[in-house]
Amino acid sequence: MFGLMQDRPLLIQQLIDHAAQNHGDTEIVSRTVEGGIHRYTYTDARVRAKKMAEALLALGIEPGDRIGTLAWNGYRHFELYYGISGMGGVCHTINPRLFPEQIVYIVNHAEDQLLFVDLNLLPMVEKLHSQFKTVRHVVAMTDRAHLPKDVEIPNLLVYEELIEGQPGTYEWPVFDERTASSLCYTSGTTGNPKGVLYSHRSTVLHAYAAALPDTLGISARSVVLPVVPMFHVNAWGLPYTAAMVGAKLVFPGVALDGASLYELFEKEKVSFTAGVPTVWLALLQYMQANKLKLSTVKYAVIGGSAAPPAMIEAFDKEYGVEVLHAWGMSEMSPLGSVNHPKAKHAEWPEKDRFAVRLKQGRPPYGVEMKIVDDAGNELPRDGKAFGDLLVRGPWITNGYFKGEGGNVLRPDRHGGGDWFPTGDVATIDPDGYMQITDRSKDVIKSGGEWISSIDLENAAMAHPAVAEAAVIGVAHPKWDERPLLIVQKKPDAAIDKAALIEFLSTRVAKWWLPDDVQFVEAIPHTATGKILKTRLREDFKAYKLPTA
Amino acid sequence: MFGLMQDRPLLIQQLIDHAAQNHGDTEIVSRTVEGGIHRYTYTDARVRAKKMAEALLALGIEPGDRIGTLAWNGYRHFELYYGISGMGGVCHTINPRLFPEQIVYIVNHAEDQLLFVDLNLLPMVEKLHSQFKTVRHVVAMTDRAHLPKDVEIPNLLVYEELIEGQPGTYEWPVFDERTASSLCYTSGTTGNPKGVLYSHRSTVLHAYAAALPDTLGISARSVVLPVVPMFHVNAWGLPYTAAMVGAKLVFPGVALDGASLYELFEKEKVSFTAGVPTVWLALLQYMQANKLKLSTVKYAVIGGSAAPPAMIEAFDKEYGVEVLHAWGMSEMSPLGSVNHPKAKHAEWPEKDRFAVRLKQGRPPYGVEMKIVDDAGNELPRDGKAFGDLLVRGPWITNGYFKGEGGNVLRPDRHGGGDWFPTGDVATIDPDGYMQITDRSKDVIKSGGEWISSIDLENAAMAHPAVAEAAVIGVAHPKWDERPLLIVQKKPDAAIDKAALIEFLSTRVAKWWLPDDVQFVEAIPHTATGKILKTRLREDFKAYKLPTA
Repeated sequence: MFGLMQDRPLLIQQLIDHAAQNHGDTEIVSRTVEGGIHRYTYTDARVRAKKMAEALLALGIEPGDRIGTLAWNGYRHFELYYGISGMGGVCHTINPRLFPEQIVYIVNHAEDQLLFVDLNLLPMVEKLHSQFKTVRHVVAMTDRAHLPKDVEIPNLLVYEELIEGQPGTYEWPVFDERTASSLCYTSGTTGNPKGVLYSHRSTVLHAYAAALPDTLGISARSVVLPVVPMFHVNAWGLPYTAAMVGAKLVFPGVALDGASLYELFEKEKVSFTAGVPTVWLALLQYMQANKLKLSTVKYAVIGGSAAPPAMIEAFDKEYGVEVLHAWGMSEMSPLGSVNHPKAKHAEWPEKDRFAVRLKQGRPPYGVEMKIVDDAGNELPRDGKAFGDLLVRGPWITNGYFKGEGGNVLRPDRHGGGDWFPTGDVATIDPDGYMQITDRSKDVIKSGGEWISSIDLENAAMAHPAVAEAAVIGVAHPKWDERPLLIVQKKPDAAIDKAALIEFLSTRVAKWWLPDDVQFVEAIPHTATGKILKTRLREDFKAYKLPTA
Repeated sequence: MFGLMQDRPLLIQQLIDHAAQNHGDTEIVSRTVEGGIHRYTYTDARVRAKKMAEALLALGIEPGDRIGTLAWNGYRHFELYYGISGMGGVCHTINPRLFPEQIVYIVNHAEDQLLFVDLNLLPMVEKLHSQFKTVRHVVAMTDRAHLPKDVEIPNLLVYEELIEGQPGTYEWPVFDERTASSLCYTSGTTGNPKGVLYSHRSTVLHAYAAALPDTLGISARSVVLPVVPMFHVNAWGLPYTAAMVGAKLVFPGVALDGASLYELFEKEKVSFTAGVPTVWLALLQYMQANKLKLSTVKYAVIGGSAAPPAMIEAFDKEYGVEVLHAWGMSEMSPLGSVNHPKAKHAEWPEKDRFAVRLKQGRPPYGVEMKIVDDAGNELPRDGKAFGDLLVRGPWITNGYFKGEGGNVLRPDRHGGGDWFPTGDVATIDPDGYMQITDRSKDVIKSGGEWISSIDLENAAMAHPAVAEAAVIGVAHPKWDERPLLIVQKKPDAAIDKAALIEFLSTRVAKWWLPDDVQFVEAIPHTATGKILKTRLREDFKAYKLPTA
């Protein structure tokens, strides 16, 4: 027997409607790529999002079509989030920092029909567009006045011209909440990037969970500045969460240096911000160098990789900012856990309280977690046992776009729903706090982005002088971790560090290049022939990168 | 095209699982009907809820069966919420304060298979049980030791005996989230009570929205005492919301007097409470008489009927409790709006800020509202125009159990989903704040203009000699209707008609001033604490206005 409740689907377009109706004068402030600050309201944003939906329909875009974006955090990108998903399209955000070949692969794999591009990224697209197989139009996210005359992209459209003739009175369609809404490719550790396809349902449920007091705790009184890019798992969902609760939004554009962020924090009275550790490190250094304080920021969410204890402490004690340690994945929309204290912690000694804060936090309702051993047996939630971290829930992927990677889930023994293996190794304590202790695949997390050790190893092994190569992450003060390439030469082969880096530079993204190369007599192996990375880490325990 | 997210249904049983896994040592404290305080944890509650599910299955209860409860707020009732809904049954909470005939009607209409009854309500059930047509067993919610020997109910079972042999290892089933979970009859003013049938989906979505910072704002650091009964729209969903976020729960049992509540607030460090105005009036009077202060309560939600301004002010200024004015209906699960300030209000003059606080608040995402005129045209959101308030959303009813009352919805002109007419008359301002100006049937129509009975009542209640005030429209030969003010004085207070009219003349428009004032011993109330205007109209049927 079903309940007798209204069958209202959860749809992204209702978020912007809710914001415009109940928080119509709340501001969305953007530092633009063209220069200067742009300022308008949820009311304005909704009209322009509707105009965008109308423009897309006029271009022949149909529900389900993928529309690519290569853009920073700004109001036009925000309008695309709602305009594209709201008419039934799929907003496909692309990381402009990827290697050009990866961008081409992703655009073609997604079969993007249109590609919206921020002004300063047009030169890159000029070089790549001939390789895009499905893109009918590139749309420059600017107005005619700001567009350089000499851009050489056929069928180029201009964002402001595209929407200016539209009425903006579009009635959003109502459709199944499981409809695809957005797409984000992960730079996987092996093989090609794989697409995570979010739905309206998963996005709205994630926004509810994200806004809860023990998750991000965002309300109509919040001023939210997402440093985390809108091309990276939808800026951790903040453009949706903010609209859901009517928070003021501040978009930093392309300027993520300490000075630019500090200026926005202060001028716009930002109360909440979120980003990866490297950004906060730069901000801290800027504030320390200039003896500045933060007057309105209360919460800074740190995710992407583990927050260094010293950073948490500095924000807390010197700046009065509560650092919320968070963990998630593209495959999780992305929020998996956030670290908020419990009532009982107030009575604990500071040392114990701080130890809890270093954990990745508790899952909100909607994320189920468990840790298992190699045989799939669930391990105790005692804060000591560690195992592969498995997750499930309505905003967690059940497979990649077009079936890439095959079936990625592990069945539940009780038939209660399959689990997604995170690739992380973790502990869970009796209070629900999860702590990552290792990564199944030894991924190197540099500035919140992942570098595949295996891909690097494969690239190095392509050199004729290399017998075997291994890559491990080594601590780095700015980037958290940087790759160290460890090489066993072929007998009598001659190769030095510079030549090897030169060799790699044509094969991997520049920021993937190892910070150093060390030559060893022999790479250690496990019994089954796999590289024994635990041994390598032990061997290079005292090693310091030349870049550190 | 659908997204590729896991198809995890939203189920009530996952709430107690989430609480037990992540907040296993968080307490649930109950003042028991038998006497004394009972104290255990979410871990304990989950085991006992599973035992209850096992016991129900052993009794032959099947998914979809309705299981009645006649009980106060306590841990066994909490276990029934999860045990019944978790095995696929429908938890049918019944208001023990209804007239016996209504209880018999409701039990038979719902076709309850079992009836769980608190100890002090067994005498009532002894008188009624022979009229119950479908009830196979009455279950006394106690243990054998507390059960009087002479209870004359055939097939009577005892709660603790029912579950004590069960393993408590039940694996909750996974089923469609639209499955019916609970049932609550509304005490309609006309006709028989009608059942609102909630679903797992509506209940979980409502819990998300309820926990948001601008709704109830509940986290794992909250200590929640629901004064609002669990038989009244699931205690406004608090037993679900608390489990979702891991808040400590304090159940007051049957003792809702000022002294008993005050004791629990202080001893259990309650931070959040919720109830109807009459309860808070009693608490205020108790604290004032005994010169007591509240040391931990931060938020008190007042709903069920409009909170008198004087009460909001007293809680704020004398007790440091932020009153959250809320509005909802059984048909809305029940939360429709909660009054939290916006950032900009901090800069407003106190008088203007306070005027906003008297409104019923803003809807959380998930509740859509609009006001319409008699012809169904939408009226402006300007805070001035008032009209019939219509709502829609995933936790709002689309019809009553067994089709009673027929089709209650009004179609949307844009095909965007039907609307539920609330029976309230309201304004909505540009910031989304809704204010009830009257019930559609209570509004006083004077010379073609509408006078809000509620505004007049609030103005009268601001007088220190007035305990409670009610306004009804009385027939008038010239104006069709004119307001009559009916007043219950505070004990020993002295006030006459002339002084009261004088008092009102500075507070409402002149043409709103009541044509007469009548003093009564007591204002009659419904079972849920609302002023019983049908009774007042009956009582004053023969009354003639002096102006007529």
